[in-house]
Amino acid sequence: MWHLHSSTTVAAALVLTLAIFSPSAQAVWPMPANYSEGKIGVEIKRSDFMIKSNVTSSSVVNAAIERYQYLVEHEYFESPYDFNEGALKTSGYIYSLEVGVQSAQDVFDLETDESYTLEVPIEGKAVISAKTPFGAVRGLETFSQLIVANSGRKIIKNAPVRIVDAPKFPHRGILLDTSRNFYHVDAILRTLDAMAYNKLNVLHWHIVDAFSWPIESKVHPELTEKGAYSVDMRYSYEDVKKIINYAKNRAIRVMPEFDMPGHTFVVGEAHPEIMSCLNKQPNWDKFAAEPPSGQLNIADPRAVSFAFDIITEYSRLFLDLGFHMGGGVLNEECWKEDPVVELYVRDHPGESINSLIVGWFTQMSEKLNEMGKIAFAYEDPVLNYNFTAKNTTILQAWVGEDSVSRIVDKGYRAIASPWNRYYLDCGNGSWLSNFEGNSWCDPYKGWQQIYSYNPLANITDPEKQKLVLGGEVALFSAQSDETTVDRYLWPRTAAFAEIMWSGNIDPNTNTTREAIKVAPRLTDQRFRMVARGIMAGPLQPLWCIRHPEACLHPSAAT
Amino acid sequence: MWHLHSSTTVAAALVLTLAIFSPSAQAVWPMPANYSEGKIGVEIKRSDFMIKSNVTSSSVVNAAIERYQYLVEHEYFESPYDFNEGALKTSGYIYSLEVGVQSAQDVFDLETDESYTLEVPIEGKAVISAKTPFGAVRGLETFSQLIVANSGRKIIKNAPVRIVDAPKFPHRGILLDTSRNFYHVDAILRTLDAMAYNKLNVLHWHIVDAFSWPIESKVHPELTEKGAYSVDMRYSYEDVKKIINYAKNRAIRVMPEFDMPGHTFVVGEAHPEIMSCLNKQPNWDKFAAEPPSGQLNIADPRAVSFAFDIITEYSRLFLDLGFHMGGGVLNEECWKEDPVVELYVRDHPGESINSLIVGWFTQMSEKLNEMGKIAFAYEDPVLNYNFTAKNTTILQAWVGEDSVSRIVDKGYRAIASPWNRYYLDCGNGSWLSNFEGNSWCDPYKGWQQIYSYNPLANITDPEKQKLVLGGEVALFSAQSDETTVDRYLWPRTAAFAEIMWSGNIDPNTNTTREAIKVAPRLTDQRFRMVARGIMAGPLQPLWCIRHPEACLHPSAAT
Repeated sequence: MWHLHSSTTVAAALVLTLAIFSPSAQAVWPMPANYSEGKIGVEIKRSDFMIKSNVTSSSVVNAAIERYQYLVEHEYFESPYDFNEGALKTSGYIYSLEVGVQSAQDVFDLETDESYTLEVPIEGKAVISAKTPFGAVRGLETFSQLIVANSGRKIIKNAPVRIVDAPKFPHRGILLDTSRNFYHVDAILRTLDAMAYNKLNVLHWHIVDAFSWPIESKVHPELTEKGAYSVDMRYSYEDVKKIINYAKNRAIRVMPEFDMPGHTFVVGEAHPEIMSCLNKQPNWDKFAAEPPSGQLNIADPRAVSFAFDIITEYSRLFLDLGFHMGGGVLNEECWKEDPVVELYVRDHPGESINSLIVGWFTQMSEKLNEMGKIAFAYEDPVLNYNFTAKNTTILQAWVGEDSVSRIVDKGYRAIASPWNRYYLDCGNGSWLSNFEGNSWCDPYKGWQQIYSYNPLANITDPEKQKLVLGGEVALFSAQSDETTVDRYLWPRTAAFAEIMWSGNIDPNTNTTREAIKVAPRLTDQRFRMVARGIMAGPLQPLWCIRHPEACLHPSAAT
Repeated sequence: MWHLHSSTTVAAALVLTLAIFSPSAQAVWPMPANYSEGKIGVEIKRSDFMIKSNVTSSSVVNAAIERYQYLVEHEYFESPYDFNEGALKTSGYIYSLEVGVQSAQDVFDLETDESYTLEVPIEGKAVISAKTPFGAVRGLETFSQLIVANSGRKIIKNAPVRIVDAPKFPHRGILLDTSRNFYHVDAILRTLDAMAYNKLNVLHWHIVDAFSWPIESKVHPELTEKGAYSVDMRYSYEDVKKIINYAKNRAIRVMPEFDMPGHTFVVGEAHPEIMSCLNKQPNWDKFAAEPPSGQLNIADPRAVSFAFDIITEYSRLFLDLGFHMGGGVLNEECWKEDPVVELYVRDHPGESINSLIVGWFTQMSEKLNEMGKIAFAYEDPVLNYNFTAKNTTILQAWVGEDSVSRIVDKGYRAIASPWNRYYLDCGNGSWLSNFEGNSWCDPYKGWQQIYSYNPLANITDPEKQKLVLGGEVALFSAQSDETTVDRYLWPRTAAFAEIMWSGNIDPNTNTTREAIKVAPRLTDQRFRMVARGIMAGPLQPLWCIRHPEACLHPSAAT
């Protein structure tokens, strides 16, 4: 039982308020699938607290233990709700945390089991049990979030705690564009840390786009020489390996994307001969959604051969099974005006720009399969151009909220990235200097809009629901780089992460999870992230965080 | 003359492009009033470079010299445009900078002369001449911005340089709200640094609002005890003095605002007896623009007496001549339903809520005058309630773009803060947890919208133009705190700063300054700010920064 050493009426009223609005598992984000707790405060025995595992051969487990051992020792997190809380009474000590892992095998892919159980008794040893090293990583994060600082001690407030947890969706990601603006490796590693705090598991690395080619190529070094912004703005092979390893230790896959054949102006810096509509000005808008225009010439066998080179080289560098071949926003006008395309279509009866597009993706998919990869693509080739992909292809739905259901209706697996919910770059004005209007995807996506979106909406067939693998928020970087990445991603991506991990429906009540009820927990997570060095912005005035019932929209109040 | 030691065709083309789009004073932001330059590169003689002044008795000058001496020694700024520039030839050395100041008197107010001249010869000694210490501060900032790094040296590219400079507007500020969320002192000092880099001169400190009372009060300590978010979230007298002094050394005034009688819910935490409509729920929207509702009871003499206490105490703590008494967004319904107000109006024929409002501001203005202050207020009491203020009162126009002209038409001085241009908090979604809509002042204000706004628009009479003292961008902090302040303010506030310093019309061409032409210079400034520790976000993909002509909106292209 709690005894407030310095209780006040205000504090008591506050506790009451929070009790209404926040579930008991206040500190854990995203909400575990199953959670039960008691009322006993226990202290972490700091002087000799140890995390150990039954497996010693897993580098993932070893790295995670080292990380969380450090965190438990050094983190001193006070929840914003505990700002004037006195010393809480504790009845026992937790001396150690044992991490049991069934198999030390550390392959991490879409099939990997991330489940774990966590038990914190009222005295003695806490225990995590997981089938895989990656489940152990998730359990360790949960354990770290149970701990709060209180009067110089570190305590878990509500022992005994029993958590049986597993993610709702296997693909929970962030798309990060490093082509419009560059992010140094440190900013990417920091983002991976933040992802791990929210149990996200895919960094969809949108490495290249029209603007720059920031990654080393050993096969086509001229791409980087002419296409990287500077010698300091390049990812070497060593950088990539470092990022992949850092991610894996946090149970995060790194899926590369080489977006082709659109958005490839930068390839033209080195190879104008394989390009169509290269940097048309000033009416670029006829040829591309944004400047500079340029698409690989799909009628030119040299362009196909170039794309094969790219797929081959980077399929080897990136170890993940997934490889995203792009395919978003193709501009037909670009090819219609290209003399090579024109000639090809004229000389090949039955061929058309549509058939060339289908041919392109057919060849790329086959190449990826040949390289042992699972092909990812944006929805466009399948939904707009009648490309009949292999059913192993995974399509990223981004255009409308009905794209997910359209994809699974065709029998493909889908990841949800609807721009009107998940595009985090929107709502920051135009980046065209002479244009005072808004961004194309205005307005800004508030965390409530992100939280209330259900990737399974309008899909009732359970078999089709299974085809929805998860989702990705996206940060296209026209107006972002390492100076602002935290602010764009967090805490909004934490809101996304809970829906991805826990689903849109609370299984305990069988009702939709509501933003109104989670704001205090999300704020708790936001403050924890700030304490861990992630510059996530506040959701509300702190007064509202403390009085959630007083800061509601009247016409929507419940 | 320049000799590119490692010239390439690409680099040459780049220089040509930039020459079209960026004025020669590329490095200096905001653009000086008069600028001329040569073509000789000179090197800063680093080993013994010294800044000295003829006056030694000005703490402002001494502090500025120390600051810029450090900066010239330690800053190593490479413009993003110079990323692959080779070593540039220089023909001479600058050995020292002499800062001539006519008067060491260091009173800084609306009348203070901030003009300076700066001469950088092709060899020898650079010279700043200023009438006041504050002009010297501006000149030093300009000098620091002329210097760029090149192959391990620090050089000024275009000597001889001659700058004769003075600001267009005397009041160039940022309104920072520290009530919705708290900013630790360090974040405020960092913001003052950033302001100095942009020659802004007013920190309008919106200290209190409905949500918290973060400042120490010696007269009413209960306000802080009950109204500050925590003991760690308070500004002590010492903190305030530190901020004022830090600001003064950067030629920045600190003008406090105590917004009354509206937006005062937090006063009710300690003094509910002097409040009307205190925290009405759930239909707060009838009584306030945002929760929690609460206005000082304008019919209660105790409320007037309380406000006098506040004005008296803080008029002494804050040394600036300006004191902002608030007055924005008054809600009549709040008072209509108040029994004290009702009774008062019933018992006093001829009195009304309008007359009580006028009475309130009349008394507050007189109190401020008595304390030797210049009263500032939002436009509302004068434009909405027929309050006839003394003509020394300065009104902050925030509602519409025509507010400025309406104010000066009445003979008052105005500062421009139109919400649809200058409210930097807008466009980040709602902070009401249960509301998926946008912020009231959507959309986000892009830098182009800020840059294209002319505070003198529709005011043709030169006498009336003189009544427009300048402007303020505003950051109300419902969704901002020290984790995000840089990102909200910069680089957009730099765009604002140039219009404030240099005016909307370029005197050399007598044409409107256009965003399209300044983007490269603004980006230069943004990168310099990042190098100085301000996390200002990027405006565009770096590719567009380097190819400004290629990233224009086609229908608006010039």
